[in-house]
Amino acid sequence: MAGSPRRTAGRRLQLPLLCLLLQGATAILFAVFVRYNHETDAALWHWHNHSNADNEFYFRYPSFQDVHTMIFVGFGFLMVFLQRYGFSSVGFTFLSAAFALQWSTLVQGFFHSFHHGHIHVGVESMIDADFCTGAVLISFGAILGKTGPAQLLLMALLEVVLFGLNEFVLLRLLRVKDAGGSMTIHAFGAYFGLVLSRVLYRPQLEKSKHRQGSVYHSDLFAMIGTIFLWIFWPSFNSAPTTLGNGQHRSALNTYYSLTASTLSTFALSALVGRDGRLDMVHIQNAALAGGVVVGTSAEMMLTPFGALVAGFLAGTVSTLGYKFFTPTLESKLKVQDTCGVHNLHGMPGVLGALLGVLVAGLATHEAYGDGLESVFPLLAKGQRSATSQAMHQLFGLFVTLIFASVGGSLGGLLLRLPFLDSPPDSQCYEDQVYWEVPGEHEDLAQGPLRAEELETRA
Amino acid sequence: MAGSPRRTAGRRLQLPLLCLLLQGATAILFAVFVRYNHETDAALWHWHNHSNADNEFYFRYPSFQDVHTMIFVGFGFLMVFLQRYGFSSVGFTFLSAAFALQWSTLVQGFFHSFHHGHIHVGVESMIDADFCTGAVLISFGAILGKTGPAQLLLMALLEVVLFGLNEFVLLRLLRVKDAGGSMTIHAFGAYFGLVLSRVLYRPQLEKSKHRQGSVYHSDLFAMIGTIFLWIFWPSFNSAPTTLGNGQHRSALNTYYSLTASTLSTFALSALVGRDGRLDMVHIQNAALAGGVVVGTSAEMMLTPFGALVAGFLAGTVSTLGYKFFTPTLESKLKVQDTCGVHNLHGMPGVLGALLGVLVAGLATHEAYGDGLESVFPLLAKGQRSATSQAMHQLFGLFVTLIFASVGGSLGGLLLRLPFLDSPPDSQCYEDQVYWEVPGEHEDLAQGPLRAEELETRA
Amino acid sequence: MAGSPRRTAGRRLQLPLLCLLLQGATAILFAVFVRYNHETDAALWHWHNHSNADNEFYFRYPSFQDVHTMIFVGFGFLMVFLQRYGFSSVGFTFLSAAFALQWSTLVQGFFHSFHHGHIHVGVESMIDADFCTGAVLISFGAILGKTGPAQLLLMALLEVVLFGLNEFVLLRLLRVKDAGGSMTIHAFGAYFGLVLSRVLYRPQLEKSKHRQGSVYHSDLFAMIGTIFLWIFWPSFNSAPTTLGNGQHRSALNTYYSLTASTLSTFALSALVGRDGRLDMVHIQNAALAGGVVVGTSAEMMLTPFGALVAGFLAGTVSTLGYKFFTPTLESKLKVQDTCGVHNLHGMPGVLGALLGVLVAGLATHEAYGDGLESVFPLLAKGQRSATSQAMHQLFGLFVTLIFASVGGSLGGLLLRLPFLDSPPDSQCYEDQVYWEVPGEHEDLAQGPLRAEELETRA
Repeated sequence: MAGSPRRTAGRRLQLPLLCLLLQGATAILFAVFVRYNHETDAALWHWHNHSNADNEFYFRYPSFQDVHTMIFVGFGFLMVFLQRYGFSSVGFTFLSAAFALQWSTLVQGFFHSFHHGHIHVGVESMIDADFCTGAVLISFGAILGKTGPAQLLLMALLEVVLFGLNEFVLLRLLRVKDAGGSMTIHAFGAYFGLVLSRVLYRPQLEKSKHRQGSVYHSDLFAMIGTIFLWIFWPSFNSAPTTLGNGQHRSALNTYYSLTASTLSTFALSALVGRDGRLDMVHIQNAALAGGVVVGTSAEMMLTPFGALVAGFLAGTVSTLGYKFFTPTLESKLKVQDTCGVHNLHGMPGVLGALLGVLVAGLATHEAYGDGLESVFPLLAKGQRSATSQAMHQLFGLFVTLIFASVGGSLGGLLLRLPFLDSPPDSQCYEDQVYWEVPGEHEDLAQGPLRAEELETRA
Repeated sequence: MAGSPRRTAGRRLQLPLLCLLLQGATAILFAVFVRYNHETDAALWHWHNHSNADNEFYFRYPSFQDVHTMIFVGFGFLMVFLQRYGFSSVGFTFLSAAFALQWSTLVQGFFHSFHHGHIHVGVESMIDADFCTGAVLISFGAILGKTGPAQLLLMALLEVVLFGLNEFVLLRLLRVKDAGGSMTIHAFGAYFGLVLSRVLYRPQLEKSKHRQGSVYHSDLFAMIGTIFLWIFWPSFNSAPTTLGNGQHRSALNTYYSLTASTLSTFALSALVGRDGRLDMVHIQNAALAGGVVVGTSAEMMLTPFGALVAGFLAGTVSTLGYKFFTPTLESKLKVQDTCGVHNLHGMPGVLGALLGVLVAGLATHEAYGDGLESVFPLLAKGQRSATSQAMHQLFGLFVTLIFASVGGSLGGLLLRLPFLDSPPDSQCYEDQVYWEVPGEHEDLAQGPLRAEELETRA
Repeated sequence: MAGSPRRTAGRRLQLPLLCLLLQGATAILFAVFVRYNHETDAALWHWHNHSNADNEFYFRYPSFQDVHTMIFVGFGFLMVFLQRYGFSSVGFTFLSAAFALQWSTLVQGFFHSFHHGHIHVGVESMIDADFCTGAVLISFGAILGKTGPAQLLLMALLEVVLFGLNEFVLLRLLRVKDAGGSMTIHAFGAYFGLVLSRVLYRPQLEKSKHRQGSVYHSDLFAMIGTIFLWIFWPSFNSAPTTLGNGQHRSALNTYYSLTASTLSTFALSALVGRDGRLDMVHIQNAALAGGVVVGTSAEMMLTPFGALVAGFLAGTVSTLGYKFFTPTLESKLKVQDTCGVHNLHGMPGVLGALLGVLVAGLATHEAYGDGLESVFPLLAKGQRSATSQAMHQLFGLFVTLIFASVGGSLGGLLLRLPFLDSPPDSQCYEDQVYWEVPGEHEDLAQGPLRAEELETRA
């Protein structure tokens, strides 16, 4: 690795010191600001004399756990496809997400549940924090393999704040609907990461080209991530919606949309593949686009047919993006997008926002009945027309793209600070830079990894 | 691969065209027929003025998610044990299941929830569709490695219809109980697949013999499938039963039965193994037979002791089946059963049906009290005696075996259509036929794992 | 393997005979004693005329399923890190746990739900049995690779009884609070296993040293275990607490504690690592210490800040334990702790008990309001002061350590019975002793696993 021993030693302290500093800071802020809400506090809960069955926990915790599985198992293993970067993919996901959960509890708490000088927390703050962490991990996907863990923590530090701000503008000021986060999570996370990756552009990255692909078993590990994301996406899009028919409908629409994006991904992958062969990259990623594309509209009266069409389009666009657009993105626009987040989260997120514009614009009192109140409260109260709601939705997408681009640029400048530890061009996508990897020492030359080598020779 | 380049090219279009055709057809049928039910529709839900806590979503969605995990993670990874067929096992499971979910929403909807010209969907249709998909994946296990993806989609197209028809005859006409599907899912799926495999018999299959076993890590991946199936089977058998004590009892009985089949599988595997060694094939599969065998009776008053005995027998029969019966099945009956579905789903499914006959025949007003109404409504109303119910259960098994055999034969004829793409005898159990496998290009010319070698040397 | 063929053959029968014997015994005891409780029995449930929504199933089953996932997927895969012991790690976890679930249903049933000559079972007995099994698997971690499956079953037979007795003394006699089991599960399981490992000390163990490490993919499999334990630990600590705010608060506290232990583990691992590199052993294990350390106090009014501090300390202590204490434990105290359970469960469990002493001692009527009744019933009734409760908590830890040490000693003597099958010093951490491992036969000599064979021969 680059640098004199002394410089290296100094840089090696960045990760532990940053972890300790950030943990110390959030702990102090927790001490000052964070309190149990009336559903988690022993005294407050009993003061209101509720039935235990009414506790929000029973309506949201199963969905929360599915979302939690997606964040840590889903995102963590989806990125394990790289042949020599599995420890970092799953490990840095783990680290960044652990910090982002704490930090976004504070940031989102300030924006959404700050009352009488305190942030009040319960299962909804847990879901919100996991959602925000999802956006951070999407951005991580764009720069995977090219950044050190201290850089990732700094990215999370900045991105969580901008995520909270953007979400506040959309949900509170513009009164836009975006339960599953086509805009606030997917488009925001993707374009933040892509712009950041542009700023960190490495012209000499092909020095690490040979490590950029997968091996047989790393692709199977990645499928663990894919499948857990796929099965639990209905819980993701329904976790924060209104109770009753709202959660139920969001889950159902997402379920249908995902089946369609899976069929279109297989179709398109075989169609554009060499000799009609399927490409694991497409299956691992584009099949999930059906979850992204209904992130805004799943709670609306999208209809099961609408969900199928949306999922089909998203899977198609995403697969074609991997095949044709990702290479151009690097060669022409100098954006090196390791996991192809533009195809899985960027384009489907924008499509999902536009679908939300359409479905909101078509909303009628007839179609929603008394349910209009919970999906589009301003329409129910007569304060907005459906067309006006649609325009607000469209403006919300615009705002999101601005926040993501400005945020990604700032993030890029931050991560380029010269004293920050970053892997050299020839050591990207390589676990050994940051991890003790079994079998790399001389005394282990006859050891475990030697054996695998023999295995392949035989 | 076999065939002239031109013929190959033509065949390569089968998968994408079939995906697009099927997706187009189901989308049109969804547009015409599928509507939200009164629990997922915004207007209908509020029109009835329910409490949100009463929405079926909160009673069934956690169970649904466990079932969904079993279908995609459980079945998907269970079949990854083959050394060179991991991409196909998990990928084709993903593809077939995505299509089967849509198609069975339509087929089962026509049979079970077709009112006023529309199919009404909610969480129960999601569970039903996942159950039907389970049967398709069981059949897939019998022909794994010997069929192409287009063939699998055609099999699903046919099997879903016959599954729906058989289920309709059993549950609606014969009024048979089979909540966890010992008959409708396991016996049906297994014998459909076995008969189909018989029709597709390949005398020259040993050309691919060397790829039919596992390697160390593929066996560990398969254990991911096993364990997820094992832990969530209580949710499978309880997902569609009546609320309250019915779901609770079904889950409890299944939990006990599985512990017993695990103990008997370990005992028998060591007993029949070379030098007393355990066989991963037994552990991965036979330990699950305890879930299959109580599929019919778990919701009945089986008693915890009854669950243990049933599980013990199922694990024993299944393990002995793998050891002694599977080889005979191939050599004498010309049935090549890749995953041994006869041992895991076939025999335990039949045993489970017979156990259902027994437990139904023993049902008394005393044992069930007012709960008789929900488990055996015809007994509660005095329209049937316990013996008569038992006879109907037995007849249900008979009907299922007929449907499965006829269906499997038809399926076999369909899949043998000469223009359908199918791997040659020497290329069975091989991912490269249908997938881009990392490391197969010229620079990696010495075979797929050559790449790993390069990797470790670098 | 050691021993004459005849002796070997005799020993090979131990596992199957013991499985059959134990299964027979528990089945008889189930027949005599185990009955459905009033929530799972068809007649009893309807006799009470409840609303189905009140069935305990809906409040506890989702948490149970998360716990069940932790026991089988979490513990099972966490131990797969050893390069040649994956089949045994996940397989023997599966076997021991299946037996322990049955056996602890009986033992805990006698202690907790024995009325009118019968044990009454439902979802709470399922959770209790899984918890007890957790303790057995923790002890297994200390002796992993050095014991045969028959020995493990005997250990479970003894440990389940002592676990039940210790838990009865703490929860029923001393009226100590320990919902998530910092004492009853983690400290008990760890010290039972460590003392047992001391009795089984192998001075010649370094004959198997070369198999004691991980390989690249085995470390990734272990991360599956880590991540599933991490995400579901909030459900573990909240599964048995009082409904409503109790479950909600326990989950929330655990969630925060785990984020802090993750940050401190990454910080400390890099700080003490060679060249600042992270060690997978630390990440896989110490990051989980935050769940252990709040096992006693998560249901109390710990505050979110308190949870962060507790998690941070636990991650720190655990990581330093792996680095500095584990080697000493072996060289000075002759305790060979394969998985480092002293660092993950032992020290954090003791810390968690002490944290419980502190938080119980600070309990006031003001902080808990009417919720005091459910968390500290004796305080609410005025039968104990907070200080007295704290002293009882401390005494509970002392009792636990006594039970664990005496139990572990007895266990060690039991497992050293000379006729019991146990791997020789040169064959520890080796799957081939107990399993058919793919690639070990001559006919597969040119196959992929030839290399692994070479590896073991080397």
